Amino acid sequence: MSVWEVMSVSSEFGKLLRVSVFGQSHGKAIGVVVDGLPAGEEIDLEELQGFLDRRRPGKDPLSTARKETDVPEFLSGLEDGRTCGAPLCAVIRNADQHSQDYRELRDKPRPGHADYTAAVKWGGCADMRGGGHFSGRLTAPLCVAGGVAKQILARRDVHVGAHLCSVGQARDMLFPLHPTAELFRSVAAKAFPVLNDHAAEAMQTAVLAAKQDQDSIGGTIECAAIGLPAGLGEPMFGGVENRLAAALFGIPAVKGVEFGEGFHGASLRGSQNNDAFVLEDGQVRARTNHAGGILGGITTGMPLLLRVAVKPAPSIGKPQQTVSLSRMEPAELTVHGRHDPCVAHRAVPVVEAVTALVLLDMLMEGNHGTF
Amino acid sequence: MSVWEVMSVSSEFGKLLRVSVFGQSHGKAIGVVVDGLPAGEEIDLEELQGFLDRRRPGKDPLSTARKETDVPEFLSGLEDGRTCGAPLCAVIRNADQHSQDYRELRDKPRPGHADYTAAVKWGGCADMRGGGHFSGRLTAPLCVAGGVAKQILARRDVHVGAHLCSVGQARDMLFPLHPTAELFRSVAAKAFPVLNDHAAEAMQTAVLAAKQDQDSIGGTIECAAIGLPAGLGEPMFGGVENRLAAALFGIPAVKGVEFGEGFHGASLRGSQNNDAFVLEDGQVRARTNHAGGILGGITTGMPLLLRVAVKPAPSIGKPQQTVSLSRMEPAELTVHGRHDPCVAHRAVPVVEAVTALVLLDMLMEGNHGTF
Amino acid sequence: MSVWEVMSVSSEFGKLLRVSVFGQSHGKAIGVVVDGLPAGEEIDLEELQGFLDRRRPGKDPLSTARKETDVPEFLSGLEDGRTCGAPLCAVIRNADQHSQDYRELRDKPRPGHADYTAAVKWGGCADMRGGGHFSGRLTAPLCVAGGVAKQILARRDVHVGAHLCSVGQARDMLFPLHPTAELFRSVAAKAFPVLNDHAAEAMQTAVLAAKQDQDSIGGTIECAAIGLPAGLGEPMFGGVENRLAAALFGIPAVKGVEFGEGFHGASLRGSQNNDAFVLEDGQVRARTNHAGGILGGITTGMPLLLRVAVKPAPSIGKPQQTVSLSRMEPAELTVHGRHDPCVAHRAVPVVEAVTALVLLDMLMEGNHGTF
Amino acid sequence: MSVWEVMSVSSEFGKLLRVSVFGQSHGKAIGVVVDGLPAGEEIDLEELQGFLDRRRPGKDPLSTARKETDVPEFLSGLEDGRTCGAPLCAVIRNADQHSQDYRELRDKPRPGHADYTAAVKWGGCADMRGGGHFSGRLTAPLCVAGGVAKQILARRDVHVGAHLCSVGQARDMLFPLHPTAELFRSVAAKAFPVLNDHAAEAMQTAVLAAKQDQDSIGGTIECAAIGLPAGLGEPMFGGVENRLAAALFGIPAVKGVEFGEGFHGASLRGSQNNDAFVLEDGQVRARTNHAGGILGGITTGMPLLLRVAVKPAPSIGKPQQTVSLSRMEPAELTVHGRHDPCVAHRAVPVVEAVTALVLLDMLMEGNHGTF
Repeated sequence: MSVWEVMSVSSEFGKLLRVSVFGQSHGKAIGVVVDGLPAGEEIDLEELQGFLDRRRPGKDPLSTARKETDVPEFLSGLEDGRTCGAPLCAVIRNADQHSQDYRELRDKPRPGHADYTAAVKWGGCADMRGGGHFSGRLTAPLCVAGGVAKQILARRDVHVGAHLCSVGQARDMLFPLHPTAELFRSVAAKAFPVLNDHAAEAMQTAVLAAKQDQDSIGGTIECAAIGLPAGLGEPMFGGVENRLAAALFGIPAVKGVEFGEGFHGASLRGSQNNDAFVLEDGQVRARTNHAGGILGGITTGMPLLLRVAVKPAPSIGKPQQTVSLSRMEPAELTVHGRHDPCVAHRAVPVVEAVTALVLLDMLMEGNHGTF
Repeated sequence: MSVWEVMSVSSEFGKLLRVSVFGQSHGKAIGVVVDGLPAGEEIDLEELQGFLDRRRPGKDPLSTARKETDVPEFLSGLEDGRTCGAPLCAVIRNADQHSQDYRELRDKPRPGHADYTAAVKWGGCADMRGGGHFSGRLTAPLCVAGGVAKQILARRDVHVGAHLCSVGQARDMLFPLHPTAELFRSVAAKAFPVLNDHAAEAMQTAVLAAKQDQDSIGGTIECAAIGLPAGLGEPMFGGVENRLAAALFGIPAVKGVEFGEGFHGASLRGSQNNDAFVLEDGQVRARTNHAGGILGGITTGMPLLLRVAVKPAPSIGKPQQTVSLSRMEPAELTVHGRHDPCVAHRAVPVVEAVTALVLLDMLMEGNHGTF
Repeated sequence: MSVWEVMSVSSEFGKLLRVSVFGQSHGKAIGVVVDGLPAGEEIDLEELQGFLDRRRPGKDPLSTARKETDVPEFLSGLEDGRTCGAPLCAVIRNADQHSQDYRELRDKPRPGHADYTAAVKWGGCADMRGGGHFSGRLTAPLCVAGGVAKQILARRDVHVGAHLCSVGQARDMLFPLHPTAELFRSVAAKAFPVLNDHAAEAMQTAVLAAKQDQDSIGGTIECAAIGLPAGLGEPMFGGVENRLAAALFGIPAVKGVEFGEGFHGASLRGSQNNDAFVLEDGQVRARTNHAGGILGGITTGMPLLLRVAVKPAPSIGKPQQTVSLSRMEPAELTVHGRHDPCVAHRAVPVVEAVTALVLLDMLMEGNHGTF
Repeated sequence: MSVWEVMSVSSEFGKLLRVSVFGQSHGKAIGVVVDGLPAGEEIDLEELQGFLDRRRPGKDPLSTARKETDVPEFLSGLEDGRTCGAPLCAVIRNADQHSQDYRELRDKPRPGHADYTAAVKWGGCADMRGGGHFSGRLTAPLCVAGGVAKQILARRDVHVGAHLCSVGQARDMLFPLHPTAELFRSVAAKAFPVLNDHAAEAMQTAVLAAKQDQDSIGGTIECAAIGLPAGLGEPMFGGVENRLAAALFGIPAVKGVEFGEGFHGASLRGSQNNDAFVLEDGQVRARTNHAGGILGGITTGMPLLLRVAVKPAPSIGKPQQTVSLSRMEPAELTVHGRHDPCVAHRAVPVVEAVTALVLLDMLMEGNHGTF
């Protein structure tokens, strides 16, 4: 048998709730199949569209000029506005593509982008127009799935919210000890999703400065989930952290994931990092939440807290050094096309979406101690 | 049907290579089953023991005084010193337990430890003596599996090495652009696994200061893998980062995982973070390695670089505030028993072990573009 | 947390090659996502359509009168007629639905059908029009995926073929010891897919007699695969039989799966059932193939042989006894609508499709001993 | 990177409840890890031993003369006789091996056995003494796991029972429409596990005749489960049939699996095979159970019924034709050692064990409609 010229993709995650994302940026359509949703769940399509609009580009100078309406068509799984038990499939047709912008990139891989690794993996067959299957555009169907999950969770008083935590050196404040659904809603309603609006100004200034320089800039996102029961998750490799991290690294440009104090905790002492247990209203609670709501991989009942690092978008207007793969010689590359000077703020709802999907999956296992 | 009083554990990971860890700290034995190892691989048991000894406690004042010989017995999967294709099972008998030290903890959960979450999840049935299944002791069988994987990888010129990157505020230097197997060996041979021995002194001082204060201290570990082909990994949720993170968070006390620049990259600009492609000896290489050897979830052929954050060990001698679960009233707790003032240095080989296992699993899928 | 009113679906299978089927019979569309296909594989769409037409109904009096054109639209994964590495999604729009025919069935479950179990599982939310997600119609996207797999396998000289083995008491002959690709093609070209055309007459008579009686009739299908290397598959639960059976039982109406002599072998002696090893052209072969090409779950290099039992279609015109779920009282039901008096002959390409997908998945693991 | 000389085993199954079997017949020990058991379940070790004794050989002339005491040692997961949430590991040390009996087989593979396929897969490294990892001996740890599952299920009024259904041409009666736990117990208590003791005589005669002839003989087993809720299982590939079949084919020598009427149903008409729905005590029931308790992959609430085909044991005393792999020339083989003239009756508890494990796994998902 001849060798397999190529290879295995895996654009899926989940255990009981399976999420499978498909599509290329400049192909016919992108979409998602969600298998295992509870049946009988009403989906408010207007609310869902509101969620999708939070990641949509083209709204202001901080994002790519690409216009996308991003209205999903549901091919299956919904009947009379409710989930019917069968797998849900939602499709978003692609439009407003400028594929010719990307012609050069087949030969000259963009530094920092998957052009080169896709070319190695799939040879000349990879459809990398607009980033292909690696494009941030694939986060749109992910948000469809996650928006559905958020509605199902909210009905059970589990809420997921996030904010832009930093852009470059500009930093937002962190979530309070007990964030509320109301706080999540107010951040989500902002054009620039931060807690402290003064921080927003500094961040926007940083983004626009990068744009001015034909450059891009990175950022971090903090995400919280409230209303989770204690006892969710499994020891070692089945923990809440393991499963969230495994999915969160699937968001393009994410290069780090931490829970609670995370990397900062590595500089602390145990007496600073341990959360004392206290009784509140007859419930065991923690006085602080350095653990981010997780001990031994299992939820404590305190808010779940995580942060992700989003690298600066690799597509920049500045000339960069690369190689011509066909000639195997050095080459200079100036990326044309429409780019985001920062993707971190647009990734805020995506982090919520992925977090909601993983938590819904774990809650459906029922293996928490409170039922 | 009555409710299930309890719950699902998942102490396993892997796709083609499956690793299943079992045991409680003060039970009869701990061990591991590794299913899917290539057959015909010679395992050098002396070299393996040398690897296990790197995480063994009781060697110096920086670790717990618990003595463990940690010599695994292989029940299956090895014949005449070679893997035979059948699942490998290795068992380490427990000894030198002082279970009575832990009696109080069943009622008064230690802050920062899994005592409370295990109690919620498994009710009064959890065997939490010495940390039970959540104990750092479970990393011994993980190192047996990982030590075997390291030997198999090394035979194919893939090498995995790590060093202690920081303890508290004291920091080691980082790996050079092209770390070598020789460098990995020299670090592994040190009693305190750092690159810069001056840093070692500062770190040890920090550990001993914490010990003096009946406290503990956290740290970070940097791990690298060299010799990987370009094209390994899959887009989105099947990427190298996803799979490594999912496993690395299974190491007790790990609260953060980042690749390449990671969180630091979030403060950079694209022009700083992108790695220019260059030609070296007719091969496409990157001039820098901010990406940590991974773009779009897929290896570039550059060294893979990751860091993990290890929180300060939660068991400390200082009095701490907790609750009595039986009386549901506040309680003070002073943890007796033998503890590690720092677990980060002992976790260095564990990070290598887990990284090696994940990489071996992915290499066995064969889905990289170069074969 | 309130109980989950419902439930997990799993319309997926595969390890490196993942197949996810979605859609309801009378929803907007049905379709499939195939994640992990090798890149660079040319897909002959005309040949694929020819394969799909083999399961298409409405061609003759032996099948339902429902007309379906079943032309898939590829939304992703194909570019310039070749797989591009990204997940492939194909969609078939539904048309020619007579949903009103099914209104009564929401209250009065059809005996032998999933109406009742879906109602229990998903409450009143299940979309069971036309059988919903349980409909035989879902085998159309499965054949899209399987038809693609067949082309990829054929390029590597692995061929999968099947024939209708029996209908009621009428039986076809069995595959010869060494079936050929040519034989597979000649059977596939027949309107009624049997080896012996005399058998076809008896089978068709049986189907028409059942139709005349407003009844239905069952059948069996034999499937073979040639060109497989020896050494494919894993011991115990990872064997070729395990994985094929797990997928084949996903075809609606399949109630039995056997390999080689299967159930007949249970009445034999070892001396009758063992296949003597012989040398042919310097290769180890078996003189007979009672094992169906599999020993210990692993391929021998002889043709793989399996049979599936297809129950008589549950939708029949005869009045049947059931219950009214709303009134909880006995009820009589006469199923209207258009039905297949026999689904076994239409299931022949579906068995090929599923077999091809599982074998492609296993071949991509590369874990056979001959490469 | 050089090719992997060999590859992946998979001796595991399960989703939330993971079962991993290890060991070779003549290695140090065989055993099992069960990850995900509910915590707090009392395990009656005496009852478990009684279950294990049902498959133990060496009791009478119908089985191999190999003596095994088969008393498992629990290394983890049990404390004070109850499951503690952590993975359970049980080990059975091997003894009474006559490995020299098997020396010849390394070169001359036994017809019908995995000797040849293991040699292809794992080269000369396979440890095939006594059948190695493919030996029926590996069903002992499987019965440890299954015996534990049976106790947990019984506590929730789910009972699994099986009987020998046929040996050669001799046939037992089938289970009645509503088998009871009492019936299961009475069959289990018999030395020869059949419903009709007259059938037992004919079967034993057939086994002894085969033994007399230095031959072996096959058989079938019927297994039932009662007390299951309606609504368990998922459509298409996640059905009860799919998951049971995937696991049951992991029992050595199983070559066929069918549910309800199975292959016989393929010769029936819909009007014969459909089970009319009726009301009994205000519950929806079926008047007959041709479906074996499963429609659309989902349980109906009627007893689950399945049958497996067990081929005649391949190790027989008669001379057989094979090849010498070292000389690549024809060879005659007379298998010495101690063999079972029939393995079907010893496989009865193994089928119960595997069925119980799969059902427990599915019940733990909680995705049935009644909770």
